[in-house]
Order: sequence, then C-alpha cells, then structure tokens
Amino acid sequence: MNPLTSALLTDLYELTMAQAYLEQQMNQSAVFEFFVRRLPPHRNFLVAAGLEQVLDYLSTLHFSQEELAWLDQSEQFRPSLIDYLKTLRFTGDVEAMPEGMVFFPHEPILRIVAPLPQAQLVEGRIMNLLNFQTMVASKAARSVLVARGKPLIDFGLRRAHGAEAGLVAARASYLAGFTGTATVLAGMVYGIPLYGTMAHSFVQAHEDEILAFRHFAETQLNNVVLLIDTYDTEAAADKVVALAQPLKAKGITIKGVRLDSGDLADHARKVRRILDEGGLPQVHILASGNLDEYRLQDLIETRAPIDSFAVGTAMTTSSDAPSLDCAYKLQEYAGRPCRKRSEGKATWPGRKQVYRSYTNGGYLDHDIITTDDDQQPGQPLLQPVMKGGRRLAASPPLADLRQHAATQLGQLPESLRALEHSPVYDVRISETLQGLAQTVDRASTTKGVTR
Amino acid sequence: MNPLTSALLTDLYELTMAQAYLEQQMNQSAVFEFFVRRLPPHRNFLVAAGLEQVLDYLSTLHFSQEELAWLDQSEQFRPSLIDYLKTLRFTGDVEAMPEGMVFFPHEPILRIVAPLPQAQLVEGRIMNLLNFQTMVASKAARSVLVARGKPLIDFGLRRAHGAEAGLVAARASYLAGFTGTATVLAGMVYGIPLYGTMAHSFVQAHEDEILAFRHFAETQLNNVVLLIDTYDTEAAADKVVALAQPLKAKGITIKGVRLDSGDLADHARKVRRILDEGGLPQVHILASGNLDEYRLQDLIETRAPIDSFAVGTAMTTSSDAPSLDCAYKLQEYAGRPCRKRSEGKATWPGRKQVYRSYTNGGYLDHDIITTDDDQQPGQPLLQPVMKGGRRLAASPPLADLRQHAATQLGQLPESLRALEHSPVYDVRISETLQGLAQTVDRASTTKGVTR
Repeated sequence: MNPLTSALLTDLYELTMAQAYLEQQMNQSAVFEFFVRRLPPHRNFLVAAGLEQVLDYLSTLHFSQEELAWLDQSEQFRPSLIDYLKTLRFTGDVEAMPEGMVFFPHEPILRIVAPLPQAQLVEGRIMNLLNFQTMVASKAARSVLVARGKPLIDFGLRRAHGAEAGLVAARASYLAGFTGTATVLAGMVYGIPLYGTMAHSFVQAHEDEILAFRHFAETQLNNVVLLIDTYDTEAAADKVVALAQPLKAKGITIKGVRLDSGDLADHARKVRRILDEGGLPQVHILASGNLDEYRLQDLIETRAPIDSFAVGTAMTTSSDAPSLDCAYKLQEYAGRPCRKRSEGKATWPGRKQVYRSYTNGGYLDHDIITTDDDQQPGQPLLQPVMKGGRRLAASPPLADLRQHAATQLGQLPESLRALEHSPVYDVRISETLQGLAQTVDRASTTKGVTR
Repeated sequence: MNPLTSALLTDLYELTMAQAYLEQQMNQSAVFEFFVRRLPPHRNFLVAAGLEQVLDYLSTLHFSQEELAWLDQSEQFRPSLIDYLKTLRFTGDVEAMPEGMVFFPHEPILRIVAPLPQAQLVEGRIMNLLNFQTMVASKAARSVLVARGKPLIDFGLRRAHGAEAGLVAARASYLAGFTGTATVLAGMVYGIPLYGTMAHSFVQAHEDEILAFRHFAETQLNNVVLLIDTYDTEAAADKVVALAQPLKAKGITIKGVRLDSGDLADHARKVRRILDEGGLPQVHILASGNLDEYRLQDLIETRAPIDSFAVGTAMTTSSDAPSLDCAYKLQEYAGRPCRKRSEGKATWPGRKQVYRSYTNGGYLDHDIITTDDDQQPGQPLLQPVMKGGRRLAASPPLADLRQHAATQLGQLPESLRALEHSPVYDVRISETLQGLAQTVDRASTTKGVTR
C-alpha cells in the first residue's frame, strides 16, 4: 500500500460526509480554496510550492479494489458509498498560482471547483501536499536570500519526516534556489543535481585519516570532497596538502574539503590559510552542521572563507515553523457564497482572485484580493491549470519554476528580504469582496444562526 | 517510483563511499549504532518507535532495474559499483530496544552489524524512520500522561510532512497511548481505530445549520458527532437539543458534539449545561483546535467538561522539537572499536548494551551504558531482532507494543512525567566503557591525528 497514491490517505470524516452528501443528493458544484491564515513568526512572505504533486494526485485519484474491499468490511459505510467510490474520478477545475510565486496571508493559492463530494474528499491530501512544500520553499528562500549567490545544498533527508518529506523537500528547496541535494532519488525523479562528500564513518573505518582521504580520492570518478573534522580539523587540512601532489601525479584533483563541527568561521579561516599556503587555493570549503539562515547570515557577514553550504534539518523540517496555519475552505456551494465565522478563524467568502501591482522599479508594491468576477489593476495571480479533471498543459519543467521563484525573490522589496519582521506587506481586500462578506453574514443571520 | 521502498532514498555519499569500500575491499563487519545525543528542550525522556519499519526496509532492500539503469547512466559511478548493487541484499544482524521503550541520550536503541558497505548504505533511511516515529511517540506520550485516561485522537494528517509522515504519525501516537486516528489508511494498514466528526464545510454547504445536523445524523451508520462552532457554538448546542428527540424517534442517537475554536473550557461548560438541561447528559464533548500537551493540561486541571480530545499539528510535527539530535555512528570496524571526536559531537565507542534498574516500587531508577560483553545488574534493553538479514520473530502486534509503552510510561518516576524540565535521569557510563574510550583515543593519538 503506497500512501503517496492511496485514496485512503484522507480523514475519516471526508468519507462520512461524502455518504451524507450522496444520500441527500448534494452533488452540485462546490468551490474550495487553499490559503494561509497568517504568517508564521519569522516569515515576511511565503513561496507557493507543491502544485505539481496536487495535480498528479487529482488526475490519478481512484479507489483500488483492495481499498474498496477494506472499506466495505469495515462496516462503517453504506453500500451506496462504496458503489460511488468505485467509479470516482476527479472531474473538477483547478486554478492556482504557479509554483515559486511569492504570496501572503488570506490569498488563495489554489481553487478547486468540483461536485461537492469530490471537492471535499481531496481536502486532506491537498493540504498535506501544499502545507509541506510551501513551508519548505518559504524557509529555503530565506537561506537563498542571505547566501548572496553562494551554492546551497540540501542535506536534510535523514531528519525529514519520512520518505516523501525527504524527497519533496529536495524539490521545494531546489525550486526556492538551492543548487542541489544529497538525496539520490531526487536526482532520479526530479533531475536535481546531486552533491555529496563523505561521512565520519568513512574516516573512522580506516586506521589512518590520511589513508581514508587517499582511498576516497582514488576511487571517485569526480567531485572529491574530503571531510576533515573527524579528529582535528587543521591537522586534517595539513594531510590534504600533503596528499594533493601525489594525487595530482595520478591525475586526481581534490575539489574541496568539508567542515562539519566547531566554530565554522574560525576553522574556515585556518583551513583556508593552510590550503593557500600549501598551494591549493582552488580547493573550496563546504560547511555543514546545524546550519540555518541565521548562521548562514553570520558566516557571510563576517566573511568566513566558506564557498558553499549544506543545509539540512532546519530547512527540511522548517524547524522554527514546522507547519503553516493553512486552510482549505468551502467558499461557495451551488452558486451560494459562504464563509466560516468561527472565533478567530473567519474567512473571506466566494471564489476569489489576487491582483499584484509592482513599483516602477519592478518590486512588489501591493496585492488586492477580490472576487473572481471583479477586475482590478495589476497581474492576476491565479491561473487555470486543470479543467474537467484534465491538466491544461504539461508539467512545467522544474527549472522554469525555479527561475520563476528567482524572479519573484528578486522582486521582493528590501524590507521583506530581512530575516526578521518587516512592515507587513500591503494586501488589500477589495470593496466588492467586503460587500460580499457582509451580504453572506446577513443571509446567515436572518436564518437565525445566532443564539 | 515509491520513495518508501526505493533504495535510492539515500544520500549520494552512501554510494560514493560504497564505491571506495568495494575497491579497497573493505567489506569486513561494521557496527553502527543509532542513538540520540541530547534531549530536545521540553523533553524528559524519549519513546523508541519505528523499528518495525526499519526491519521492513532492511528485509526488502534491493535496487530495481530502473534504479540501476539510472545510476549507470548518471556517470557518477564505476560499473563495479553498479554490479555490486545489482545483487545487494541486507545480510546483517540487528539488535534493538523494543518499540515503546522509554530511553535517554547516548543509549543506542538500534545496532546494525553488517559488512561495511551495507551497514553504511542504510544510514539515511534508518535515521529518517527512527527520528520521526521516535520524535512523534515521545511528543504524543506527553499528551497521554496529562490526559489522565481521557481518549486522544490523532487529527494531524493534513499538516504532517507528507504522506508517510501522516500515516506513521498515526502509528507512533497510537503506540504511545492515543486511542485512535482520523487517518483512514492507518486503519487499513495498522488496524488503528478510526474516529471522525464533520467539517465546517458540511455545515456551510447547507443553508441551515440544523438541516446540516439532521442530514449528517440521518445518513451515518453510527458515531454521530456534530461540529457546533461554525457560527455560534451555544446556539448550535440548542439545535442539537431540539434535534435529539425527533432523531431518537427514528432510532438515531447523537453520540457527541465537537468544539473547535474559541475558549474551549468556557464553551464546554456552557454546552455541557445546555445538553444536560436538554436531557442529553450522555452526549459527550470532543474538543479540537491547536491542542498540545500544555493546553490539554490546562483544560484537565481546570476540569473543563470535555470528554475527549483531538490533537493534530502539534503532535504530528512535534512542533516544539521537530527533529531529534540523533546519530547513526560507526562504533567498530573489523573488530576495532572507534569513535568520532569532532567538537561537541564525541560518541562512546564499541558495541554497547544498556541495563535498566528499577526502584522497589517498580519505577525507573537508573540505566547503565556499557560494552556489549560487560554484564551489569538490571534488565538488558537491546535484544536481537534480525540475524543474517532475517527477522528472528514475526512482527509483534501493534497492540502489544502499545501495551509495552503504557507499562513503561507507568514506570516513569513522577519527576519525569512533568511537562517541564525535571532532574536529569541517572544514566551511568560503566568503567569498562570509559576505559574503552580512553584506549581508542590513545590509539588514534599515537597515529598522529592531532596537529
């Protein structure tokens, strides 16, 4: 049972509600939108990601024989629901912001229009996919902004939350501007460039550190990067210098060294000097070890001679904000706009569009959230991507999405690029949308929902 | 390509190191151990989980034709490595703590003994599996301890980090004492009891809230739990009272109501009074909405009349500690113990065992970490589970592991049960192990690794 493709990777209530919808013949068109209610602490913007996986999911959604049989014997559902699920396919429409788009709270990044039971059923997996990749891309973008062009590599698989998280974190961080990943499967599945060095265990498995370095260098086809902090970092740098000539005689070049512990800036300075004095100015220094955007910023601002960085756990788990306050909410059913008014969780009703305006210099100036049929100045951010369950275009190459993200990040005003809180970006609610919200509230109040 | 079973869900360096090991004929027996270096903030203990998935992974590990072909064309590896991978199976031995065991920093919970290239290759996925489930079980156990027997349900799928995280978080939390999950697939795969209610969208899709309640109740086979906070919580409770009699006449019982926003304790008191005065004392109250162990503790200590709790994001993402400072380290190669001495990351060498002693009252008293061949008083916690790549016993039923966890949690001394920091549990390093570390350090120093 592959959870990535199982239709049962959903909450029980999606099925019990589907049963109710079916029996009450409530299968008219429903509009759901995915958005984030508020920014996590330490975020000034978000980067949309995960749409590709959502479209994959929607276009292949079905219940297998095995899943149907299990549902049937669970005695929690009526035969009519099982029958309905047998032939269920997603036949709805999707509009979405392209991946890599910068966005802000209350702006929908995805809209589903489909018969109510379908649109409801896909809630759990859509949220699961968009929450994670958007969270990771948004975190990774912060490292990209402070790295000022220095290469960043994803080393996060081992502490990612499971297999899919490890795989798609490589995708989301590459999309946001990382240079590559260590996760081999992400190379195969997404064509992301792969990078790697060696582990401490490699050094320890040898009786001598210098022997470990030589063995590694002699057996690689390319990209010899030696890990030099297993015992004594500077002593190991000396060994690298000592090895370089004999290796060169064999046609082998040491490409770099990796630091993974201690005071990285201090070690980098000492190691840089040892390498330079040893005639190895071209050997680069890669740093790793509990790095995040704050430590990157420190290392870069203090001009530590580090050429590239591997970022792992903090990025892959979005450690300071391991979830988004995101929602997938019904905004319209059978042509009637609606909204939730639960305390602290109210939403804007109806199907919406977001318009973005730029300054003369090309930077983001403000956004307007309005109803779908209300034209506003600026660039509309939600675009049709699926119609009647079919994708309107082939998947865009990941390289294009990455370029899109780079363009968007380049258009961020300086204040939003800071790691700490900036003045809140100007997101306006149009008068049309405000009017619709009032109309919706009046309609539900007259129906006596207030005590 | 299923990342859960792909042998390429690994770091690039595992393959480049394998190539070096093969060419240097370094395929003698290696001992790796998985352990946690230090407790996260706000944790007094950890609960081991994920072993079952590790054993599954090891016993089915292989490279598919497609994966081999991709590696071959990537031009990063020599043909000898591809040949080796073609027939690679895991043939090693595994010792481990049973899932559900409480453990502490520096105590290995898993030991792999296998030919070096094999034992190295599995590093990434083993860490990925054990880090996540152990982290979630450890977080979930805190809610279980404060809930004092009230049922807890996992509602975390939507903000779990991807598909596998959503699925196995249901498993890890159930193992730690949760009562069930909303994730349907976890019911099918692990037999975990399923729970669910209804979404706000269900209420919104109806023009009237009371009509929504009636439709839902009339179409369920059992377990009618109505969500009452979409518009006005107490007004909705009145509607539940009004509906109860007509539904009863049709043989339908309302089992409970769910609160999901606002001041949960205050709403619960008001709703309890409305239900009781309406002749519905048996209708229970389920609370959800950004709950974690701290909010649970508050609600329970202030005696809010809530019967059960749904816990989502905070538990599934282990939001206050979304990773463990865990490691999978080489402790011995070809009979020679070794250890890493990197600054701040030193480890204890050799293959180890953990002995646990209990007080007269049956509570955990202290642990001793020692070498595998050094008998100490107490209960040895690591047990053989795989030999020559084959499991020594069938998978234990999840119910047994859950019982084991419950027993362990029941044996925690009062101080360790607190949500905040307690005095550190007494974990002793035996003289034998301390002596071994000194011997190992002396051996590597005489080889001139210090500058």
